[in-house]
Amino acid sequence: MNNSNLTLHTDKYQINMMYAHWIHGTHRKRAVFDVYFRKLPFGNGYAVVAGLERIIDYIRKLRFGDEELAYLAEQEEQYKPEFLEELRQFRFSGDLYAMPEGTLAFPNEPLLRVEAPIFEAQLIETAVLNFLNYQTLVATKAARVKQAAPHDVLLEFGTRRAQEADAAIWGARAAYVAGFDATSNMRAGMLFGIPAKGTHAHAWVQSHDTEEEAFMRYAEALPDGVTLLVDTYDTLKSGVPNAIRTAKALEARGMRMSAIRLDSGDLAYLSKKARRMLDDAGLPYVKIVASNDLDEHIIFNLKAQGARIDVWGVGTQLITAADQPALGGVYKMVAREGEDGGLIPVIKISGNPEKVTTPGAKDVYRIVNKETGKAEADYICLKEETDVKEGRRIKLFDPIHPFIHKYVEGYDAQPLLKEIFRGGELVYDVPSLDDVRGYHREQLELFWPEYLRKLNPETYPVDLSTAAWELKRDLIESYRK
Amino acid sequence: MNNSNLTLHTDKYQINMMYAHWIHGTHRKRAVFDVYFRKLPFGNGYAVVAGLERIIDYIRKLRFGDEELAYLAEQEEQYKPEFLEELRQFRFSGDLYAMPEGTLAFPNEPLLRVEAPIFEAQLIETAVLNFLNYQTLVATKAARVKQAAPHDVLLEFGTRRAQEADAAIWGARAAYVAGFDATSNMRAGMLFGIPAKGTHAHAWVQSHDTEEEAFMRYAEALPDGVTLLVDTYDTLKSGVPNAIRTAKALEARGMRMSAIRLDSGDLAYLSKKARRMLDDAGLPYVKIVASNDLDEHIIFNLKAQGARIDVWGVGTQLITAADQPALGGVYKMVAREGEDGGLIPVIKISGNPEKVTTPGAKDVYRIVNKETGKAEADYICLKEETDVKEGRRIKLFDPIHPFIHKYVEGYDAQPLLKEIFRGGELVYDVPSLDDVRGYHREQLELFWPEYLRKLNPETYPVDLSTAAWELKRDLIESYRK
Repeated sequence: MNNSNLTLHTDKYQINMMYAHWIHGTHRKRAVFDVYFRKLPFGNGYAVVAGLERIIDYIRKLRFGDEELAYLAEQEEQYKPEFLEELRQFRFSGDLYAMPEGTLAFPNEPLLRVEAPIFEAQLIETAVLNFLNYQTLVATKAARVKQAAPHDVLLEFGTRRAQEADAAIWGARAAYVAGFDATSNMRAGMLFGIPAKGTHAHAWVQSHDTEEEAFMRYAEALPDGVTLLVDTYDTLKSGVPNAIRTAKALEARGMRMSAIRLDSGDLAYLSKKARRMLDDAGLPYVKIVASNDLDEHIIFNLKAQGARIDVWGVGTQLITAADQPALGGVYKMVAREGEDGGLIPVIKISGNPEKVTTPGAKDVYRIVNKETGKAEADYICLKEETDVKEGRRIKLFDPIHPFIHKYVEGYDAQPLLKEIFRGGELVYDVPSLDDVRGYHREQLELFWPEYLRKLNPETYPVDLSTAAWELKRDLIESYRK
Repeated sequence: MNNSNLTLHTDKYQINMMYAHWIHGTHRKRAVFDVYFRKLPFGNGYAVVAGLERIIDYIRKLRFGDEELAYLAEQEEQYKPEFLEELRQFRFSGDLYAMPEGTLAFPNEPLLRVEAPIFEAQLIETAVLNFLNYQTLVATKAARVKQAAPHDVLLEFGTRRAQEADAAIWGARAAYVAGFDATSNMRAGMLFGIPAKGTHAHAWVQSHDTEEEAFMRYAEALPDGVTLLVDTYDTLKSGVPNAIRTAKALEARGMRMSAIRLDSGDLAYLSKKARRMLDDAGLPYVKIVASNDLDEHIIFNLKAQGARIDVWGVGTQLITAADQPALGGVYKMVAREGEDGGLIPVIKISGNPEKVTTPGAKDVYRIVNKETGKAEADYICLKEETDVKEGRRIKLFDPIHPFIHKYVEGYDAQPLLKEIFRGGELVYDVPSLDDVRGYHREQLELFWPEYLRKLNPETYPVDLSTAAWELKRDLIESYRK
């Protein structure tokens, strides 16, 4: 359990398919895969892309070491030794395009496109989805919380309820991308440079004879930024009065207490009462932190009730994305190398029309109105199409209801898929985490608020080019026969 | 992001409390913490404990290395250099007691008890909860799925929707503890010795000119145990007939196809039709695997409809415990070292009666009726009490409704908390994963089916000893004054 090599962080069937391709000599044939989701989580109007940094790191380190190869040899007797030798040489040699972290993304558009020998493209499917699905999910949830409290301080507090250790740190990072200010997880702080914050637990109070003694001693040890948890015994009768005494003792030393924290009970009532008590004691600068199973709905409602809370500690609901704990991102083949070396578009048919894939290697552009500076639609076209790149007149139409359409010109077309790996080499300048945060804020500016609102947002248009739509229609027809 | 040291996998406030204790010279004082949950997940009648192996590994490896110490020095300017030197010497030196993995556990009883210097007990809280909460949650969910299909083969298929990499592997392990038969995750297979299974994806079919060619080639490459995914184009018109042709071709070579896999559409209808087609073709031995967002409810309903499914691939719903993605396990101080070196019981009061802690270092016994061999109740008593150990008459009563009580004698009392670490040394003989599975099956035998059923189970009694109950009552009284 000390092995941190993620090369076997994949499904058995990927290795089986790699093997079957290798047996038939088709393993170096190129294929193109799109990664996309079909449905937005939480009823939100957009998703916030996250996970790319993790994916880049994973791809760069892909190596089958001795332990992995020995396991494969033992686990599947049908694998020939020569196949394992082939795996020993494995390096990712393909191309990868992806939306940068922090991008606002929508259903049925590629967030990521892989163009690689099928041998490589199959191996990475599982991990790419695992990272992108979870991190995008939490970033999207965090964006909703941020929207409920846009001007307050937001703390990610979820580690103890996270789904194991990786979720804790990558979830903390995803929350930070979408506007959270800090995390309680020290390892996330160390690995990613996210500010780490923390106060004390009930146990600190319980380990002293009185609450007042506990507060005074805590403030003595860590006077700078001290926040006292006031609900161990009785918030208003004991916790807040003791915190006020501690703040006064700090004042006598020329210092200021930072905040009190409420962690149970009626947060609307208690925060208003506590605010008044603090103000009456001449401590208007002492802030109020709240925690206890908060999410965007509770925060929104507490604010509507006039709760006097300055800082929100959000745990379980955020880190597990509790109301929808999985994003259904998929990784679908859209083209493959034919006999002549060219790419052939391929489709996956389904009885369920939403599940029919959109064939061909495609690009995505965000069509921005030059006058308003706002995004009008995302436009998916075949890679070889040039109209949108060159700013020519394009037809936007709804792929479900093609009669709804309009022509646009004079727009600004922003390509959303950036080149990340070319021939296995990283060609992307990985941005700092603070740059990712900044880019995410800019992305939000690009959209009308109707698309961003938390409840019943407008559906942002994601359109296919005429050529992409016709290709899909023709391939469906050819399978119907 | 290459750092796999989990020592800082903790909340900032733990380090702050460690610091504040160190400043005041109280950091070596011993304290006792209980880990328990208050509410069962999914409306289930029990939880299946998992996570201990991970916790043991974590505790044994706790070390503040140069990177961790440099980060702490930079992150919190208030920490004195001598504190960091103290951390450099950090080793867990305490005692830890825990229910073995696979144990059936109930609300408000300690699953784990830590007795250690407060300095150490605080550091480990976050990670212990993180591991135990997630793994116990998934093991419990898996036990429900197992109950819906007790005699079928169950495959864990969730990696792509898991909440990051650790969740995928530890969730696969937790599912295996509770009776799953295999996982698709190769890394989980390698690290834990869980059988790994897999077939092929739609991409395999899409990367060939025809489905039949794809099936034939797959069966050629991996003839042993071949399972063909039949829904890429049309399950009944194309997939199943092509799979039948492939099975016949295998028969001509003296081999048998293992199964077909259905991954979309009406699984009840399709499985019955496919079964008939396979039987009519003289292939009664070819099994049917189903996948596609399955959980215990869907499996139960499919079976009620007469679906002919032999093997269930369960993904998202299991690995994220989607209907309740967090177990609310808590870590609460129940005693601390007093001035004279003895342990003083402590309590945490709350406006919410369920949240009041049960003070004192406690043991838990499973009271088993010698005649029936079935568990009657779990009995929580203070560590120093001897009646139950010696099999004397004890009073069982409901701590919420104390007038409901009975006396029992002649029982078999099974201590549930095993000694894991003593003075920082591992004294527990960590069982193999297959032994854990076997122990879990035995645990299930110990309970009447009424406690185990999936829907509206009876509430299994968890009782306090008279002494434990009186201690709690007296401490509550003393705080009321």
